[in-house]
Amino acid sequence: MSEAPIGVFDSGVGGLSVLKEIRQLLPAESLLYVADCGHIPYGEKSPEFIRQRCAVIAEFLRSRGAKALVLACNTATVAGVADLRQHYPDWPIVGMEPAVKPAAAATRSGVVGVLATTGTLQSAKFAALLDRFASDVRVITQPCPGLVELIETGDLHSEALRALLRSYIEPLLAAGCDTIILGCTHYPFLKPLLSQMLPPAISLIDTGAAVARQLQRLLSERGLLADGPARETQFWTSAAPERLCKILPVLWNKSGSVQSFNR
Amino acid sequence: MSEAPIGVFDSGVGGLSVLKEIRQLLPAESLLYVADCGHIPYGEKSPEFIRQRCAVIAEFLRSRGAKALVLACNTATVAGVADLRQHYPDWPIVGMEPAVKPAAAATRSGVVGVLATTGTLQSAKFAALLDRFASDVRVITQPCPGLVELIETGDLHSEALRALLRSYIEPLLAAGCDTIILGCTHYPFLKPLLSQMLPPAISLIDTGAAVARQLQRLLSERGLLADGPARETQFWTSAAPERLCKILPVLWNKSGSVQSFNR
Repeated sequence: MSEAPIGVFDSGVGGLSVLKEIRQLLPAESLLYVADCGHIPYGEKSPEFIRQRCAVIAEFLRSRGAKALVLACNTATVAGVADLRQHYPDWPIVGMEPAVKPAAAATRSGVVGVLATTGTLQSAKFAALLDRFASDVRVITQPCPGLVELIETGDLHSEALRALLRSYIEPLLAAGCDTIILGCTHYPFLKPLLSQMLPPAISLIDTGAAVARQLQRLLSERGLLADGPARETQFWTSAAPERLCKILPVLWNKSGSVQSFNR
Repeated sequence: MSEAPIGVFDSGVGGLSVLKEIRQLLPAESLLYVADCGHIPYGEKSPEFIRQRCAVIAEFLRSRGAKALVLACNTATVAGVADLRQHYPDWPIVGMEPAVKPAAAATRSGVVGVLATTGTLQSAKFAALLDRFASDVRVITQPCPGLVELIETGDLHSEALRALLRSYIEPLLAAGCDTIILGCTHYPFLKPLLSQMLPPAISLIDTGAAVARQLQRLLSERGLLADGPARETQFWTSAAPERLCKILPVLWNKSGSVQSFNR
């Protein structure tokens, strides 16, 4: 049993979609969340830049006593998880990956769409995932520049968001996709809007809940799960704290105190 | 007469729209261009972060002997030009500002639209500009999250760009704007697309050419204009050089050698 906190980070507010799943599954855990909003979007950054950010933020979360780390960002996982695991061999680290395997199992049309950042889609890691799990299905990939930035504004129903999203899903529908992978932790916040825009037969697949279960497994194996009453969540951001404060009630469903992260 | 180069920078490739005007007006000048693509988009960053980037890049351009500086970025001008002028009182520095005065003079409907980043539209500088030059006209402001990021991909005719742009111009047209200010140096690259999408009576106003003339004036007053044959332009970027290399033929109309900027 360990009451030490769990560290979670993302390039911005997208990781809150994962944090929600962790909070629901593990209410007794203290959670620390770093939103690297000052460097959004990671999707168009160089791998080297992202690795540096991962190293800085991981070290900060270690200094706060984090017993485990969740990279709640697909792009950061692609660029940085291998280095982090090498650097901290005994620290439980959970990363994200697009849900290619469950999508390949779920599709009936045999065509799966993937919405993700350019960084994720161009990675060797993603290519390997397709090789391994999607050899029997057709996979249509769609990079989505601008989408993360619009979600970061906290307005999930703007006409701009709807228009941009429509342009990204139309090619997937035209190709016959019946299953769409949300391959960026920002995108689950689009589910309400997507459910209005997509035919009802289309399934949306993300990995937030699976990541929370994987975290639970790793902590349980090591005897590190906390118990007792519900615990707090603390937030940091590398952009203006007021901005995250304003968005928390929308994306996290309640307000929270936000501290400044200047590293 | 001085053959020292002129330093120009932007958060990304938008400043190339200004660089083009400078190149055309001042062919005998050597130009240095820094694209801070590793930190795009400035529009959503804190003023403090942008001031730091301005300081680092200005110092680099000084170290390369730049005889003048052009902040080819509206958001960077809002955040950083005052500090830079204080720090380098004798260095000619030209910034950008939305063309409110010419737009107010040009409108016949009395309604002017402004497309810009959130950072520019929320600034005290922009409020002062409206107070001073737009008291007699109605001004409709439209922040455009995501637009810079889409332009940075170098694809200026994608369906996504068209969709996002449409959502941003529709409110301006509905309000009766006949004059639209392009208040971000990225947006002049949208003119071909905008001219297809807008009724022919709508005027688009940007400030690239005016900035080039202002630069010429400042250099001429100080006896610093170069003469002689056409000179070179050198490029640096804080993201992967290959990406800027790929975009230069599209936005700069010819290729160029790009160096890495790691500060």
